[in-house]
Amino acid sequence: MTRMTARPENVHQAQLLRLLRDDGPRSRAELGDVVRLSRSKLAVETDRLVELGLIEPAGLAASRGGRRSSIVRLSRHLRVVGIDVGATSIDVAVMNGELEILGHLAMPCNVRDGPDIVLDRALDLLGKLRGQGLVDEIHGAGIGVPGPVSFREGVPVVPPIMPGWDRFPVREVISQRLGCPVLVDNDVNIMALGELHAGLARSVEDFLLLKIGTGVGCGIVVDGKVYRGMTGSAGDIGHIQVDDEGPTCVCGNVGCLEATFSGAALARDATAVARSGRSPFLAERLEQTGEVTARDVAAAVAAGDPEALRMVREGGRRVGHVLAGLISFFNPGLVVIAGGVAGLGHILLAEIRSVVYRRSPPLATGNLPIVLSELNDTAGVIGATRLISDHIFAATQDIP
Amino acid sequence: MTRMTARPENVHQAQLLRLLRDDGPRSRAELGDVVRLSRSKLAVETDRLVELGLIEPAGLAASRGGRRSSIVRLSRHLRVVGIDVGATSIDVAVMNGELEILGHLAMPCNVRDGPDIVLDRALDLLGKLRGQGLVDEIHGAGIGVPGPVSFREGVPVVPPIMPGWDRFPVREVISQRLGCPVLVDNDVNIMALGELHAGLARSVEDFLLLKIGTGVGCGIVVDGKVYRGMTGSAGDIGHIQVDDEGPTCVCGNVGCLEATFSGAALARDATAVARSGRSPFLAERLEQTGEVTARDVAAAVAAGDPEALRMVREGGRRVGHVLAGLISFFNPGLVVIAGGVAGLGHILLAEIRSVVYRRSPPLATGNLPIVLSELNDTAGVIGATRLISDHIFAATQDIP
Repeated sequence: MTRMTARPENVHQAQLLRLLRDDGPRSRAELGDVVRLSRSKLAVETDRLVELGLIEPAGLAASRGGRRSSIVRLSRHLRVVGIDVGATSIDVAVMNGELEILGHLAMPCNVRDGPDIVLDRALDLLGKLRGQGLVDEIHGAGIGVPGPVSFREGVPVVPPIMPGWDRFPVREVISQRLGCPVLVDNDVNIMALGELHAGLARSVEDFLLLKIGTGVGCGIVVDGKVYRGMTGSAGDIGHIQVDDEGPTCVCGNVGCLEATFSGAALARDATAVARSGRSPFLAERLEQTGEVTARDVAAAVAAGDPEALRMVREGGRRVGHVLAGLISFFNPGLVVIAGGVAGLGHILLAEIRSVVYRRSPPLATGNLPIVLSELNDTAGVIGATRLISDHIFAATQDIP
Repeated sequence: MTRMTARPENVHQAQLLRLLRDDGPRSRAELGDVVRLSRSKLAVETDRLVELGLIEPAGLAASRGGRRSSIVRLSRHLRVVGIDVGATSIDVAVMNGELEILGHLAMPCNVRDGPDIVLDRALDLLGKLRGQGLVDEIHGAGIGVPGPVSFREGVPVVPPIMPGWDRFPVREVISQRLGCPVLVDNDVNIMALGELHAGLARSVEDFLLLKIGTGVGCGIVVDGKVYRGMTGSAGDIGHIQVDDEGPTCVCGNVGCLEATFSGAALARDATAVARSGRSPFLAERLEQTGEVTARDVAAAVAAGDPEALRMVREGGRRVGHVLAGLISFFNPGLVVIAGGVAGLGHILLAEIRSVVYRRSPPLATGNLPIVLSELNDTAGVIGATRLISDHIFAATQDIP
């Protein structure tokens, strides 16, 4: 077997690899229709990619009138790894070159245990996938973490819920352990990439991924690429003020979106409601388990509990107000809503939509879909592999 | 003289033209340091640009040790035109290839008079500049209008303050009249391009231009290019809600930013204050002229009138709240504040800054300058010529 640490040598090779990744096996004739290369130049580049071990022949295409064109596909040996570190869980998946999931394992894990423990567990999960014979050589790995990241340096930067991770060299450590290129980004950005690659945003150039989980964040995709902003904090919308007199936030300000509606805020409010006796359903949960979670609120909503419905509606209205402003500003082609609290489903969605369609300019909302993610737990790992795949399948030099 | 309807034939020529435009005359050796071309290929491309009449020799450079390298510059015959149609004025300017202003004329003109009258006046002003011998052939023109524009089609789309302009073929009409390529965009986007080309944003890739004039709008620059959004309405922030119980807006909603603070809102509030007798200064203006404008409020602020100060402070707080949210979301490298109301100057700026630095995440505001534009009335015409120059100086085919 050819060792496949190879990378594309020019923009044409990079384009061919991305085409084969996103659209699957193609005949040389079909590739020639898409890339702007002469027949002979195309042959040179595809032959070179075969030589590099990045693509391989896959039979002959049906005739288009003349000689049958040969089909090529990404090498069957290509493997990329996605690691999605959440606040309370880790997901690890192995993909082929087309970023199809070959294996996916998850386990509970508290990010507060620090980088040594958490990253070791991630590598243990990867070891199990290796044990299943899914992976030989790894060509790259993408990692998402639940906090701000300096993308250039591959380190978390003052992440509020990740004690011990500040400036920990995640990229360097994992790159050395796996012996392959690694990129690190925050969890919301990689979820957005997941939606771009395999979700409802597949054909959308400019969209927003609104994640409502324990916290609230937004992934921004411009022109098919994650927009990170000047210092990497773009999309950090959890602390936009939605209420002059709202609850005090962990950040020290008053009435932040995240302090008013998020998984954590919902659990807090639902606990208060349970204690007050206003919701027999939630009171029972509190008595049974000693706590009330956002998941319990979802169950209460499903059971038709009026207080739970009121909380979700009010929260949806808050989120809707912030989102309406972002849509006025950004005029996206799509908004995808994801994260644990998105599990509240269509009642939450209806409230968000209602505010947005009333408050954003008609020119911006005319054809704007606002939808719930359909990828669930796989958005993060898919996005993480897309991140590293875009990096591997890029020419080292953009102008040849 | 060579006729200069020529355009660059490939990405290298396009890059060379933009370098010479933005940095001025350069020796071939210096150009070779910047573009990634072999010495012989660079010579081929620059020779071809001379042949096309797009650049011309400009003497010899000082020796760098060997043979003296010859200097080239953009052709002295290149002329681009910028037309900035405002709500109540037109500005027309003629620039050389480097987008330096050779001549600039302005006149009052109500955009509500409709496209036939307004565009005729713009061409009259251009005729006067031609009469001064500043222009022979025009190589391109950029036009800004005070309303939403379909950039692709070059037509205004349901512009609220431009009756008669809806879907009027501005680009086509002017392109036929001038016999050159024309692009049309909204006024805030071209102001942002003006700041990018010649203002405080010159070296900033990602920034916001907040215009507070009769209305309120925002220009968004991502990666050195205007971001227009899915339907061209990106930056339309005037109708973000800032007050649940604020004044009713022309859009039919309640408490929009623009209805709460803008040139128009300030004039309305100042008139009310003048009538109530709470400000002797504004009452006197009202008596003298029969109306009170935002300009009068600025004069009252300068004279230390407490009611005027209160209005400006309150307005700054509203703008600051919206801007804080946009900064959390977009994490720009710079915010430039422009437009008539920005003439209120540092009192307004101080209030905006105070809210932003309190309400946006420290990671986003740490090194974020928020400044007043220094370009004044020239931002629009400079930006309009930058728009068309970027178009002319782009290769028709991006991958050669």
